[in-house]
Amino acid sequence: MRKPARFQTLPGSITAPQGFLAAGVYCDIKRLGTGKGSNKGKKRDLALIVSTAPASVAGVFTTNQVCAAPVLISLERAKRGLGRAIVVNSGNANACTGPQGLRDARAMTELTARRLKISPEDVLVCSTGRIGVKMPMTQVRAGIQAASAILNGSPTSAHCVAEAIMTSDTRPKEVAVEFKLGGRPVRVAGICKGAGMIQPTMSAVGPQARNGGLHATMLCFLTTDAAVETATLRSSLIKAVEQSFNRITVDGDMSTNDSAIILANGVAGNEALDQAAATASGRGDLAQFQTALNHVTLELAKMIVRDGEGASRFITIHLTGARTASEADAAARAVANSLLVKTSWCGGDPNWGRILDALGYSAARIAPEKVDVGYSLPGEKKVAFALKRGRPAATPFEALKKIVAQSEFDLHIDLHIGPAGAVIYTADLTEEYVDFNKGE
Amino acid sequence: MRKPARFQTLPGSITAPQGFLAAGVYCDIKRLGTGKGSNKGKKRDLALIVSTAPASVAGVFTTNQVCAAPVLISLERAKRGLGRAIVVNSGNANACTGPQGLRDARAMTELTARRLKISPEDVLVCSTGRIGVKMPMTQVRAGIQAASAILNGSPTSAHCVAEAIMTSDTRPKEVAVEFKLGGRPVRVAGICKGAGMIQPTMSAVGPQARNGGLHATMLCFLTTDAAVETATLRSSLIKAVEQSFNRITVDGDMSTNDSAIILANGVAGNEALDQAAATASGRGDLAQFQTALNHVTLELAKMIVRDGEGASRFITIHLTGARTASEADAAARAVANSLLVKTSWCGGDPNWGRILDALGYSAARIAPEKVDVGYSLPGEKKVAFALKRGRPAATPFEALKKIVAQSEFDLHIDLHIGPAGAVIYTADLTEEYVDFNKGE
Repeated sequence: MRKPARFQTLPGSITAPQGFLAAGVYCDIKRLGTGKGSNKGKKRDLALIVSTAPASVAGVFTTNQVCAAPVLISLERAKRGLGRAIVVNSGNANACTGPQGLRDARAMTELTARRLKISPEDVLVCSTGRIGVKMPMTQVRAGIQAASAILNGSPTSAHCVAEAIMTSDTRPKEVAVEFKLGGRPVRVAGICKGAGMIQPTMSAVGPQARNGGLHATMLCFLTTDAAVETATLRSSLIKAVEQSFNRITVDGDMSTNDSAIILANGVAGNEALDQAAATASGRGDLAQFQTALNHVTLELAKMIVRDGEGASRFITIHLTGARTASEADAAARAVANSLLVKTSWCGGDPNWGRILDALGYSAARIAPEKVDVGYSLPGEKKVAFALKRGRPAATPFEALKKIVAQSEFDLHIDLHIGPAGAVIYTADLTEEYVDFNKGE
Repeated sequence: MRKPARFQTLPGSITAPQGFLAAGVYCDIKRLGTGKGSNKGKKRDLALIVSTAPASVAGVFTTNQVCAAPVLISLERAKRGLGRAIVVNSGNANACTGPQGLRDARAMTELTARRLKISPEDVLVCSTGRIGVKMPMTQVRAGIQAASAILNGSPTSAHCVAEAIMTSDTRPKEVAVEFKLGGRPVRVAGICKGAGMIQPTMSAVGPQARNGGLHATMLCFLTTDAAVETATLRSSLIKAVEQSFNRITVDGDMSTNDSAIILANGVAGNEALDQAAATASGRGDLAQFQTALNHVTLELAKMIVRDGEGASRFITIHLTGARTASEADAAARAVANSLLVKTSWCGGDPNWGRILDALGYSAARIAPEKVDVGYSLPGEKKVAFALKRGRPAATPFEALKKIVAQSEFDLHIDLHIGPAGAVIYTADLTEEYVDFNKGE
């Protein structure tokens, strides 16, 4: 029996929690950008998210060694653990822009702080868009001024921010939930954007040389009126991102700008969540908060994959039976990122040979004669097996095709050689993806 | 000044060296296969390559843990170091076919041996085509019979074999060269096929769990009338493959069937090449042989990339300045396999931001502020830099576009943090690739 949801879904997003203001405007950054799809008409491209009260802040950022200037600034400010506002633009990633890029990112926080009459240290900054182009600071300055003049707590403002962070996204992405902590209603909400260069691997420490690292920029902004102690907020965000954004891949390319930031302003008036202060009721409240945050981030992460560049299908890969968690992850990602597997899905072809091939070259140990591969419809328990213990199963090919023809389905892979598992959310690879990204 | 070539290019291929016979026929395996493009008309799909004299044999095979039955058989026989014949089919990979697949592969060698009146141990076997479909042994038997009846040493027969191993290839791939060893003319020749599921990583030991492994089946058959001692032949083949087939990637998918096999029958009558017997003239002869074998394998490897599924551009990546050879390889492959880099090339877009992004998430350490990225036309020394020391270079965008608009160009990346380098040959990613591979 399914447990009843311990939270309620609400309309709206980042202004649903108490004490948050938002504004999204256009100031011509997108038109100046040369990225395809970003230079048509007047599209919102600058936004502010502001807490009316001082807030705990936590952030996780791309581990790409080439990371954008705003990531470096926000990484430092997130480590402080306190903040009030986020300034964000689309149309220009402010990446590979050298010392000038850092000065521009810092100037964005200073301009915002001056308008809001707060400290620049309390402002985080994010950018997404074309790499290697200098920020058009005249436009940015005008944008910050315009946005700060119309800040308000309406759902429409939140929606405008969700629009202002879009690049190749076809639609804004918003989620909000409400639950109770100590009898008081508390809300957690978020917005995010994709939609190509998507295989985030974010951490609270930022850029690092990786072994076998993988890969649109994704940005996510979360707000909550819960009171959460800083270290606890960071650890909750890391857990939430690990099971959501760090589990998705559209095209296997990890961006220079991936960022997920949460502000918790405590306006709900609950007793502050603090994992160090381990009373039983405190642990229960924290678990409730984590469940809500996990839900919000996972819903947002799935929206990114569903709206992936050119994507026509959404696939959830359930990999089980690996020797270790990292091998489970490597095996699932090898399948999710295989061009031949992704293109077979595009055609609705349940080609298990390509899946087995990708498992075979992954960094995971496998025993081909033990592998099960099956498909199911989302939410259905019955798995139609294509392969059982390494051999073609009795399922008629047409039955498999019927599942893979759907726009959403689940792929089940059991390696049967160990206890570890992983879930990866991915999309197919279509001609539209190539067309969209092939430039001029 | 360029050194004069120490060998001469000849027309023809595997029957150019003395003492080799060949035959390529059709026997309906392709029509029975369900793979796209393989079931139209009567296409050759079975071939024999036979040495009239006992030959040294060496082979390298896919390191994919899921490897086809014929790979397992040929791996063992190549280890013996002696052989006489190769039987090969297209249209069916005999992969993921369980114990029956192994019996069928072995039966193919027995049928061939019986027709040729040699030992089955002296016969190697290769297959390429659809994964997971039982070999149609009635057709295979008829094919082996038909081929063995028309074996001969004509260039046309060699060409028919090059056709018979094609799957998604649009053209046969053949090379032959001649040089002198101790005054005697000696020939080395080869044929191969691609054209998707191409990122071979072959070794003489076969399947293994890999760290960060990558990767159509590629098959390559090499013949030489040089006398080469078995261990020397194996080491020469490994060196040749390391600088050719193991340096290419079309789509990043490593196949279950990749194989490269060489037969050296000594009919040319040179003093046998033996690296253990290290006379100065012997070392010179061995170097000459290696140069020729390197040339033949590299030309064949490049043909696979140029004829890659849907490929419209051939790119040679020269990566230098990495800390270690394996980091150089990882960095070059991250760029070569990035969907966003590959699609930018498809559009003729010299997008260096995506290249830098891929370097940043690779397993190689980089310092973004030190990286140079430039383009050149093949054979030209002048590099047009897009990025110098991490900053956009002065080269006009139009000048870069002019190079990337060509069907062949070179990409130069210098990480400037170490002594190691790597070369990778790759192709762009086009809508045609997706269309071709999206199945039914």
